Amino acid sequence: MIRICGWVRLMEYVIGVDGGGSKTEAASTLINGKLMKRHISGSININAVGYEEAKRNLIEVLEIVKLEEKAKICVIGAAGLENEKNRKLIMELLNGKYAEKVILTSDAKIAYKTTQMGGGDKMILICGTGSIAYMEVNGKPLRAGGWGYLLGDEGSGFWIARKAINKILRGYDEGRQPTKLTLKIMEKLNVNKPQEIVEKVYSEMGIIDVARVAEDVAKAFEEGDEEAEEIMMEAAWELARLIKTLIKRSGIEKCEVYCSGGVFKTSNKLIEAIRRYVEAEYPNVKICRCSYRGVAGAILMAIEEAGFTVNEEVIRNLEGWANA
Amino acid sequence: MIRICGWVRLMEYVIGVDGGGSKTEAASTLINGKLMKRHISGSININAVGYEEAKRNLIEVLEIVKLEEKAKICVIGAAGLENEKNRKLIMELLNGKYAEKVILTSDAKIAYKTTQMGGGDKMILICGTGSIAYMEVNGKPLRAGGWGYLLGDEGSGFWIARKAINKILRGYDEGRQPTKLTLKIMEKLNVNKPQEIVEKVYSEMGIIDVARVAEDVAKAFEEGDEEAEEIMMEAAWELARLIKTLIKRSGIEKCEVYCSGGVFKTSNKLIEAIRRYVEAEYPNVKICRCSYRGVAGAILMAIEEAGFTVNEEVIRNLEGWANA
Repeated sequence: MIRICGWVRLMEYVIGVDGGGSKTEAASTLINGKLMKRHISGSININAVGYEEAKRNLIEVLEIVKLEEKAKICVIGAAGLENEKNRKLIMELLNGKYAEKVILTSDAKIAYKTTQMGGGDKMILICGTGSIAYMEVNGKPLRAGGWGYLLGDEGSGFWIARKAINKILRGYDEGRQPTKLTLKIMEKLNVNKPQEIVEKVYSEMGIIDVARVAEDVAKAFEEGDEEAEEIMMEAAWELARLIKTLIKRSGIEKCEVYCSGGVFKTSNKLIEAIRRYVEAEYPNVKICRCSYRGVAGAILMAIEEAGFTVNEEVIRNLEGWANA
Repeated sequence: MIRICGWVRLMEYVIGVDGGGSKTEAASTLINGKLMKRHISGSININAVGYEEAKRNLIEVLEIVKLEEKAKICVIGAAGLENEKNRKLIMELLNGKYAEKVILTSDAKIAYKTTQMGGGDKMILICGTGSIAYMEVNGKPLRAGGWGYLLGDEGSGFWIARKAINKILRGYDEGRQPTKLTLKIMEKLNVNKPQEIVEKVYSEMGIIDVARVAEDVAKAFEEGDEEAEEIMMEAAWELARLIKTLIKRSGIEKCEVYCSGGVFKTSNKLIEAIRRYVEAEYPNVKICRCSYRGVAGAILMAIEEAGFTVNEEVIRNLEGWANA
C-alpha cells in the first residue's frame, strides 16, 4: 500500500488479541478504532493448553480477523507470555505473516490499558480461570499473583472450583451427606459418585473445564447458598489481598481498581465483598467493574504504537463494540 | 511347567509391583518370599505422567523382574488404578504376557498389606508425592485423601512443595527479602529469580519434579528453619486429619498407624508432629514408621492369592530384602 494521502492512510488497520485463561478474543479495527472483524476462539495460554492447541487457536483468530493486507500492528496479550520460550514460539509462528509488527504482552497489561482513559491512578484485577492484580507506577509495571493454576492464582475460577471439589471429596471421606452445592456440581459434571469427579478431572477435563465449576459456585453464592458463600468469601479475601499487596508496594492509597474477568460476570457479590475488604483498610480505593473487554486494551496499544492518539473518536468507536 | 512334585512347585514365583507417585519398585520372589529379581523405574501413575510414560516404566520393570516362565500371580498396586479406564489400559498392555493372573489394586492397599502381620487394628498413612490414609474394617476398605495433586493430596510432597513455592512468589510480590529457604530452593532449581521458577514448573517440570522440592523443606525443618517448620506443621496437621477422619468413620480408637512414603524418610519430626496431633485426641492410637516397603505388600498379596500362607519363613525371607 502506498501512503500518499489521508484516505489511504485511514484504511490501515490494527489487530488486537486478548488471550485469557479460557478463551481468546481478537478484533481488527481501523486506526480510529472502528471495528472491521472480530472472533472468539479457545485459549492461547501455552502453559495451560500446550503449544499445539494454543497455536491452532491463535491461527484461527488471526485468519478470521485479518483483512486483505498485513495489519500495521498486532498486539497479543496473553497469560503465559512472560515465558521467553513461549514468546519465541509465538513469534516464530506468526513470522511476519499477519502484521508489520507484533507486540507480545500479558493479558493483565492489555486489560490495564483499558483503564487508562481519564486521569487518576488505576489498577486492574482479573479473576477468570486465573487471577492477577496489575498496575503501572511511573511506567513501571507492578503485579501480584498470576502464577498459574499449579502455584498460585488464589481466588481465581480454577482456585474456586478446586476448593469446591475438594470440599465434596472431604465430605465424602468423612461420610457426610452431600450438600446442595455438591449435588449441583455433580449434576453439572454428570457424575453419580464423588470418585467419578476425580476420574473425570484427571482423564478428560483440562484446567479450563475444571475452572468452569466456579460458575456454579458463584451462582449459588448469588442465590444465598452458605457453603458457596464460604468459598467465595475466601476468594474475595485472596483477591483483596492481591489489591492490597499492590497498594502497599506502590504507596498509592487513592486509586480505582477495575474488576475484569469471567467470575465477576457471574457474581456481583464477589465485587461487593472485595470492596468491603479493601475499603475497610483503604477508604480511598474504589472498586468498580471494568467497562471494556480486554481486547479493547490490545487495540488501544496497537493504535498508539501505530503513532496515533487515542482521541474521542477512538473511544466512541470502541464503545460501539468493546463494552464488557 | 508340569506340577508333579514338591520341588517343581517351589520354583513357581510371583511378581509384586509398587507404583508410588514418583517411582515404581518391582520384585519377583518364590512362593516363600525368597527374592529372585528386583528393579526400580519411574512412575506408572497414568494420571500423573500420562499413559505412554506409565506404559514404558511398567514394561521396563516387568521385563527385568520376570523369570523364564510366566509368574503365577502378578500384583500391581498403583495410584490412579481406581480409574476404570486406566485399569483397562494396563490389563490390555499386560495381556497375559507376564503372569497367569494379574491383580490391579491401589498403592495404599498394598502398603496396608505390609502392616497385616501380627494382630490388632492397623492403618497406613502414605506421604510421598501424594497422600492418603487407608485401612480395612471387617474386610471393607476405608480411605481418606488420595485425590491427586489437582484436587487433594493435602500434606503430601507435592502439596508441601507447592506451599513452599507459593510462599516464595508471595514474598516476591510483596517485595520482601528472600528467606534462607527461598534461597535454598532457588539454588536447587538453578534459578536466579522467582519468575524463573514459574517458567520452569510450567514448561519443564512434571508433578514429580515439583514434589521433590518437599525434600528441601523437610530437611530445613529437621535443621530448625522456622519457615519450613510452618509449612511442615501444616502438613502434619493435614496428615493427622486424614488419620482422624478414618478413626471417626471406623470407630476404632485403638490402632497402630504406619507411616510410609518418601517424605517420612526425610523427616522424623513430621512423624513426631503427626503423633502429637493425633495422640492429643486419641491417646490409644500409636503412630509408627512402616517397616516394609510397599512392594512387600504386593508380594504378600500375590503369595496369598497363589493359595499359600504367609508363615514365618515368608516373613524371614521378606525381611532379608524388603525393609524400609
